Amino acid sequence: MRDATLRDVAELAGVSARTVSNVVNGYAKVTERTREKVERAIAELGYRPNVLARNLANGRSGQIAVVVPYLDTPYFAELLQAIIPRARERGYNVLIDQTDGDPAHERELIRRGARALLFDGMIFSPLGLAQEDLDDGDPALPLVVLGERTSNGTFDHVGIDDVAASREATAHLIGLGRRRIAAIGDQPYPTGEAAQLRTLGYRQAHAEAGLPVDESLIIHTPRFNRADGSGAMRLLLDRADPPDAVFCYSDLVALGALHEVLERGLRVPEDIALIGYDDIEEGRYSNPTISTISPDKVTIATTAVDRLLARIGSPEPLPGVEVRAEHKLIARQSTLGRAPR
Amino acid sequence: MRDATLRDVAELAGVSARTVSNVVNGYAKVTERTREKVERAIAELGYRPNVLARNLANGRSGQIAVVVPYLDTPYFAELLQAIIPRARERGYNVLIDQTDGDPAHERELIRRGARALLFDGMIFSPLGLAQEDLDDGDPALPLVVLGERTSNGTFDHVGIDDVAASREATAHLIGLGRRRIAAIGDQPYPTGEAAQLRTLGYRQAHAEAGLPVDESLIIHTPRFNRADGSGAMRLLLDRADPPDAVFCYSDLVALGALHEVLERGLRVPEDIALIGYDDIEEGRYSNPTISTISPDKVTIATTAVDRLLARIGSPEPLPGVEVRAEHKLIARQSTLGRAPR
Repeated sequence: MRDATLRDVAELAGVSARTVSNVVNGYAKVTERTREKVERAIAELGYRPNVLARNLANGRSGQIAVVVPYLDTPYFAELLQAIIPRARERGYNVLIDQTDGDPAHERELIRRGARALLFDGMIFSPLGLAQEDLDDGDPALPLVVLGERTSNGTFDHVGIDDVAASREATAHLIGLGRRRIAAIGDQPYPTGEAAQLRTLGYRQAHAEAGLPVDESLIIHTPRFNRADGSGAMRLLLDRADPPDAVFCYSDLVALGALHEVLERGLRVPEDIALIGYDDIEEGRYSNPTISTISPDKVTIATTAVDRLLARIGSPEPLPGVEVRAEHKLIARQSTLGRAPR
Repeated sequence: MRDATLRDVAELAGVSARTVSNVVNGYAKVTERTREKVERAIAELGYRPNVLARNLANGRSGQIAVVVPYLDTPYFAELLQAIIPRARERGYNVLIDQTDGDPAHERELIRRGARALLFDGMIFSPLGLAQEDLDDGDPALPLVVLGERTSNGTFDHVGIDDVAASREATAHLIGLGRRRIAAIGDQPYPTGEAAQLRTLGYRQAHAEAGLPVDESLIIHTPRFNRADGSGAMRLLLDRADPPDAVFCYSDLVALGALHEVLERGLRVPEDIALIGYDDIEEGRYSNPTISTISPDKVTIATTAVDRLLARIGSPEPLPGVEVRAEHKLIARQSTLGRAPR
């Protein structure tokens, strides 16, 4: 049996071929009743519109890629929760890729032409890339970068003010009277550009309060995850002079650190106060709940999608813009304690 | 300037057009040195192989879709962690979609031909669909279904034995001497087919131990998330006769319930023992850690990908198979307590 054609569908549904095409392409001007008739005919005939042929003709795939280091990091999962519906609302599918933060994989993604026609543009949260790698990317790829980078003028960048946010988190601990404040999550250059902004904010808060920084309290971790937070906390608690507070560079790190503190029979925040970063849902249900820096994820997600679609739709390359989303500090039990206040 | 062609790349790299084609298509027989030469030439010329044209020619998109109800559910995020590398290893990109468990959206996905050429097959974790909806799906779509469904012979199904696992979880609580065991997560038909298997296991464990089931201890929740777990626990603790243990239908539900118990100043497991389901990483770091049913996620993920690619590659439709992955009960602090044993 030959495959059903658009004309077959039109005939069975009793509408014009143009109307079938409108339904298939998702144009809004079709009435609900007509749409249903056409869809019934499509189902009955097993008709498959040739999406690839259509994309080939108009040079678009109707897909955007969202590339994150780790999909099982709740921050990215929560961001995707806002990115996917926004993209879908605007008629785009989302293709998701994860890089494991591997610099080679990340470089390949922004350079290699091989994938270009599979997606029309990319929202990218790099981890392993240095700024110069980004500067070296394909200038023809519509690109929006998330996280702690700077636009070089060929792509858009959406993020929060990480230095200010980290300064506020550290100042919150200083304001509670803590004086031996550790930092968990620093990373060396170049992978660690994100982490280094947080360390900078941590240093600035100390300087503003006239406090010295004990360099031995700044702990490097390969990733921002629970295991690394727990491992770093173990090192800190094994010292003769443990800290009385910790600024953790992500909520996952804070949750790992919290677990280690409680396993040792110490109290949070009485013995050690903890603050995280990201405001993931898990930190609102942990025991105690986690104080954190809350980035405006919905604004980050919707702005990233809207900027990307603007770049995709523009006949000329648009100049890159820096978009700064809001953040706020949310103090919970891990710094304020459980007592009602 | 005209776009670079495959021939331009071959000339610049000093290799044959066939070799460029081999590199672009990712064939393994190219030496690393040749691959690098070709990739350098591709980058230099800004060459974009016409992926869509190639897909059009062979009728494949090189993409598989993975469709889950919620991306911010750690169980699915962890499963994707294993699905994506497996698919990539076998030369496929993964397109991810989330349905929010909406039955209409889910039905559309397995019926609508409009998306067919965007992906070659689908790994689908339905939530809102009844079994008969699945039976009604497009038989030409290569499909692997995850979760608590049964193959009707036109698709593969990969899951664990949910009834047995739920029976074991409940029996674990009974074995610890608990007698008023609540269940959080039951859902009505048809959405609740997954949940109903767990309730069945819960009932079987009671029957096997010769214990009656108190129907009022079976709590319905719209979703398997933290908020619903916490809300259900609130209802249970507000009763004159609260339970002494709870079987939660997911770890997220258990983590929400745990939060509510501890907020009230009660102890886990002394006052209330808790067991979850899924073995997500969060339950290994919570305080206390969560006892759980651990499905073999790696086997589920790799089997799903392998079965799907077999279906995609087969010239004739393959008969649907049922694949049952292993599970095990992992007892942690939320049932055994913190004391070293």
